[in-house]
Amino acid sequence: MHILGIDIGGTKTSVCLGNERGEILASGRMSSEKSANFEQYGRDLAQLCASIIERGKVARTALQAVGISAPGPLDIKRGILIAPPNNPGWRDVPIVALVKDILKTPVYINNDANACALAEYLFGAYRGTADLVYLTFSTGMGGGIIANGRLLQGITDTGGEVGHQIIERDGPLCGCGQRGCWEAFVGGRRVAERLREKIRAGSIKTALLDKAGGNLEAINMELLAAAAREGDEFAVAEWNEFSERLAQGIGNLIMILNPQVVLLGTIAIHLGEFILAPLREKLRKYAWSWPLAACRVEASTLGANIGDYSALAVALTGMR
Amino acid sequence: MHILGIDIGGTKTSVCLGNERGEILASGRMSSEKSANFEQYGRDLAQLCASIIERGKVARTALQAVGISAPGPLDIKRGILIAPPNNPGWRDVPIVALVKDILKTPVYINNDANACALAEYLFGAYRGTADLVYLTFSTGMGGGIIANGRLLQGITDTGGEVGHQIIERDGPLCGCGQRGCWEAFVGGRRVAERLREKIRAGSIKTALLDKAGGNLEAINMELLAAAAREGDEFAVAEWNEFSERLAQGIGNLIMILNPQVVLLGTIAIHLGEFILAPLREKLRKYAWSWPLAACRVEASTLGANIGDYSALAVALTGMR
Repeated sequence: MHILGIDIGGTKTSVCLGNERGEILASGRMSSEKSANFEQYGRDLAQLCASIIERGKVARTALQAVGISAPGPLDIKRGILIAPPNNPGWRDVPIVALVKDILKTPVYINNDANACALAEYLFGAYRGTADLVYLTFSTGMGGGIIANGRLLQGITDTGGEVGHQIIERDGPLCGCGQRGCWEAFVGGRRVAERLREKIRAGSIKTALLDKAGGNLEAINMELLAAAAREGDEFAVAEWNEFSERLAQGIGNLIMILNPQVVLLGTIAIHLGEFILAPLREKLRKYAWSWPLAACRVEASTLGANIGDYSALAVALTGMR
Repeated sequence: MHILGIDIGGTKTSVCLGNERGEILASGRMSSEKSANFEQYGRDLAQLCASIIERGKVARTALQAVGISAPGPLDIKRGILIAPPNNPGWRDVPIVALVKDILKTPVYINNDANACALAEYLFGAYRGTADLVYLTFSTGMGGGIIANGRLLQGITDTGGEVGHQIIERDGPLCGCGQRGCWEAFVGGRRVAERLREKIRAGSIKTALLDKAGGNLEAINMELLAAAAREGDEFAVAEWNEFSERLAQGIGNLIMILNPQVVLLGTIAIHLGEFILAPLREKLRKYAWSWPLAACRVEASTLGANIGDYSALAVALTGMR
């Protein structure tokens, strides 16, 4: 069975040809950003798809489905990119109809967090795990939930928006407009912003600014972790606070969903045990011992290429 | 199809004979409390089951399954009541084996919150709703989650323990030992305890103590609501705070699970719109507008007899 995966990221779009076992026969990338209007992007995408199919040595008619993984907000039922965050020029793009038109085959779409959960469920080290949570954990905190072996999509396709559980009433402002969202405490963007605010306010002794080459704007989670690893007092305290909040949100998911596996993407892949070890330790305060003991908390098992797998997973799930 | 339902409550056990359409042909009750040891309870239960089957005019051999709804903690896989809260003399009671022995038919068990969710899913006004949450909302705050038309049981049978999501770090102590659980803010027992503590501490002007006939111990959620309804300043403020916390927890469930329906039991059945109207209003602060608009927040639609339906629902779900 041949399927095509299209992973639309903020900066890059990746296209891959694969099969139901998650074997990738050919793949390639293009920019998602360069085209201010969508027409140019559409033409580039058609060309890239054609070249990947050709490189995979598969007849276009042998293609059984296409899966698209894209950043929200999406209108999944109508197959529309409502407002891709890094492409302010794109609004209400009917991506599913467009790709269907190019490739003359069924096209399915889901948001990137759900798609990653499906990828882990179908192709990851814990594949087949009936209750599994995937957390995107990069600039924001998206989630995809597998419950009883099926994606929890929800009635308005916002199932798994775990980053917007409110873990502190009237807490810090989140990008979504609410206050106290989990994402406002642990999403990479807001963590970095808070660090900058604190350092800008002055009177803090930290090596963090040096690590960022004196450029406040370059401060991010990776640099915070590096400074904390070296024992920088400010960074250690901030890292500790961050870990505590990460544990609170995951603990809540363990109590509500009682999964066998929670997998963390991006930042956790980069930082590994430096983030996971204290997290597991702190989780004892935020979840009961037996559901916690039954739950593995790990970094994503599909690594940096999860985007390709996630788009293929969307196609396979859609076909069922 | 004939099925038997056994609803083991803290004070009473109800047995009913019904069918797959949720029609109840006969039912009866007995005390859960009087027997300090389990043997006597077992004998009483066998007798009650026999008399209900007889009253239903059904041959014992025509019985296709038995469902048991019981308070946690349970070992569902082994069919054991680990430590029923209101029966300190019962420990590790193999209830499923016992009932199977009496009735010679398959026996299924689940905790009361999950069983209520199944009852609403199979027999309630919103039956068939694929994504539905039921909240017990009495002394504690239990939950049962239907996702994609199936109960979210979880890997250690603690799926749906929504009352133990931590909505304020280092918040008030919960009966479970954690701090800041949702249940510690909104469960009937803890709300009443906090009111008593505040009134006991003195210098509060409130009609609440009078409403309780001067008996501090008699203060409960219903009296709080009654005093708030009459405009008692202290009660209004406490009710407002309570509603805020109720909204925060439900808002989180809406963001994580994106259900079509959230149903609240016991206290919400008694208080109706007095609790639901401010809750819906406050939810706007704790969930995005579109998943919120798609979600009905109502009182349980099966009313005071949900226990019978919930036990039947456990039997039916087990048979599938």
